Amino acid sequence: MISRTLRARIFDEQTITGRLASLTPLASGSELVLGIGDDCAIYRPRGSKEDLLFTADLFIENVHFRRETHNPKDVAHNALTRSLSDIAAMGGSPRFVLAALCVPVWADGRWVTRFFDTLLAETGATGAVLAGGDLSHAETLACDITLCGAVPRGKALRRDGARPGDGIYVSGSLGGSALGLAVGKGRAWKRHLYPVARLAIGEAVRKLGATSAIDISDGLSTDLRRVCLASGVSAEIETPPVFPGASLDHALHGGEEYELVFTARPRTRIPKNIAGTPVTRIGTICKGHAGQVMLNGAPLQPRGYDHFQKR
Amino acid sequence: MISRTLRARIFDEQTITGRLASLTPLASGSELVLGIGDDCAIYRPRGSKEDLLFTADLFIENVHFRRETHNPKDVAHNALTRSLSDIAAMGGSPRFVLAALCVPVWADGRWVTRFFDTLLAETGATGAVLAGGDLSHAETLACDITLCGAVPRGKALRRDGARPGDGIYVSGSLGGSALGLAVGKGRAWKRHLYPVARLAIGEAVRKLGATSAIDISDGLSTDLRRVCLASGVSAEIETPPVFPGASLDHALHGGEEYELVFTARPRTRIPKNIAGTPVTRIGTICKGHAGQVMLNGAPLQPRGYDHFQKR
Repeated sequence: MISRTLRARIFDEQTITGRLASLTPLASGSELVLGIGDDCAIYRPRGSKEDLLFTADLFIENVHFRRETHNPKDVAHNALTRSLSDIAAMGGSPRFVLAALCVPVWADGRWVTRFFDTLLAETGATGAVLAGGDLSHAETLACDITLCGAVPRGKALRRDGARPGDGIYVSGSLGGSALGLAVGKGRAWKRHLYPVARLAIGEAVRKLGATSAIDISDGLSTDLRRVCLASGVSAEIETPPVFPGASLDHALHGGEEYELVFTARPRTRIPKNIAGTPVTRIGTICKGHAGQVMLNGAPLQPRGYDHFQKR
Repeated sequence: MISRTLRARIFDEQTITGRLASLTPLASGSELVLGIGDDCAIYRPRGSKEDLLFTADLFIENVHFRRETHNPKDVAHNALTRSLSDIAAMGGSPRFVLAALCVPVWADGRWVTRFFDTLLAETGATGAVLAGGDLSHAETLACDITLCGAVPRGKALRRDGARPGDGIYVSGSLGGSALGLAVGKGRAWKRHLYPVARLAIGEAVRKLGATSAIDISDGLSTDLRRVCLASGVSAEIETPPVFPGASLDHALHGGEEYELVFTARPRTRIPKNIAGTPVTRIGTICKGHAGQVMLNGAPLQPRGYDHFQKR
């Protein structure tokens, strides 16, 4: 989210992943139930009652963070949260982590030790374990966290399950992370620096029968559109809950929120508070033009984050 | 293997991974059967007859390759081979790949397309599929390939299974990759640029009843020592088969070979050729001092590659 100013690219992330998804059709009978295009891939081990969820997320110096503002604990927390949030969005519980870390000269043994101590502690707190990974020196610091989670067979929350008439819900309030990045201090900065993966909410709404879910990593406008595209539906929403002090733009387009957006059938009763976090209904899934999101009756453009988009 | 000259570090890779392994004891009854410290982690899904193997490997610009010498196909091939080789060393067959790619400004859409086309083709050739990953812009190119493989339950080849009296075997000949890196041309350079993961050999010797295995990623002296340390044994070897033109130093300490070293009980008949590749007995596992490797009667120091070792 930091350096959006790198040279404009001639391709965008959606184009690349869309092309890859089209080139990797899933063989029927394959253990891989879902491949590229959702928060996680779904693997169904032969004979098992559980589906395994897999996600990999990069966290990179001078792209996602700067070492002046993020200490090793912050880096480990954010790197892990990105992957945990993907597991939360599928309604899963974390099982194990593989951590690949590129270590530049400025990161000494103390830095690496503090990074892994935080990674171990926070992984353990979710019930998962660090199972392996890779270490290399490098010119800049980067880490890739691969996380495996589990759900009962066939029960993962996917992006393609939203149906016309479903209610649209969001956890917490939006815009805090983008505001924090802009002002660099106060509650909003803390929100940016210490996002929380909504694991308990994801698991709870999966059990309640939610029909689809996604985590807000690139902005509500962009991520809700992804659900609509995958489900072949449109969405009509009103203004979502806004983090105190944040603008509507922050709330609609700001990334790295890690709140969940999910949908549920009209008859499904969704509590107003889950695991201490408010859950708010912000709209309804409609037929309409697939992928279109309407805010208070007007089209909402997806202006969230794309790593390779011109801006 | 290229830039071994980065500033000497105050810690080494073995120290970090050893500490992490000691901090992540495996809970009894956990699905994670084997964690940090082998070529792959082993996960046993509830109710499944298969164990899943997981490995993650980094491949980084100016550390593992230079863009002047490696085109996108070469980068994809090498990045994937590192992980495939870990699955081969455990006797597994590849199932799916997660690819995380950091894309710098110099790598345009054509570069990224060619990278993924190679990754898709080579992944498919092993019977596996690209299941997901992550993409980000970055200052330097790096990729992390996470690979899942499978073996029948309890049958993975581990580092800790070597027993006194076992024969020690190596596939192919050694030193070609190190020679190629030194001379930058000819057959040896091709060997360096296009290493082959010995999947068929790993699977064959697992079925024959091999007791342990490892792939030579950091040099025979270092990797055989790892088997001996994990198994609590020593090894007595003679000169291994040397790649034409390579020195004994190249063969003993050169990394990125991706040949397999494995052990088998004396009664196990190991063919002299598996899947078109020579397999040579180079020695015997002994009681002795755990971790010690003797070459033609004299101690062999582990002078293979460590990312953070002073040199």
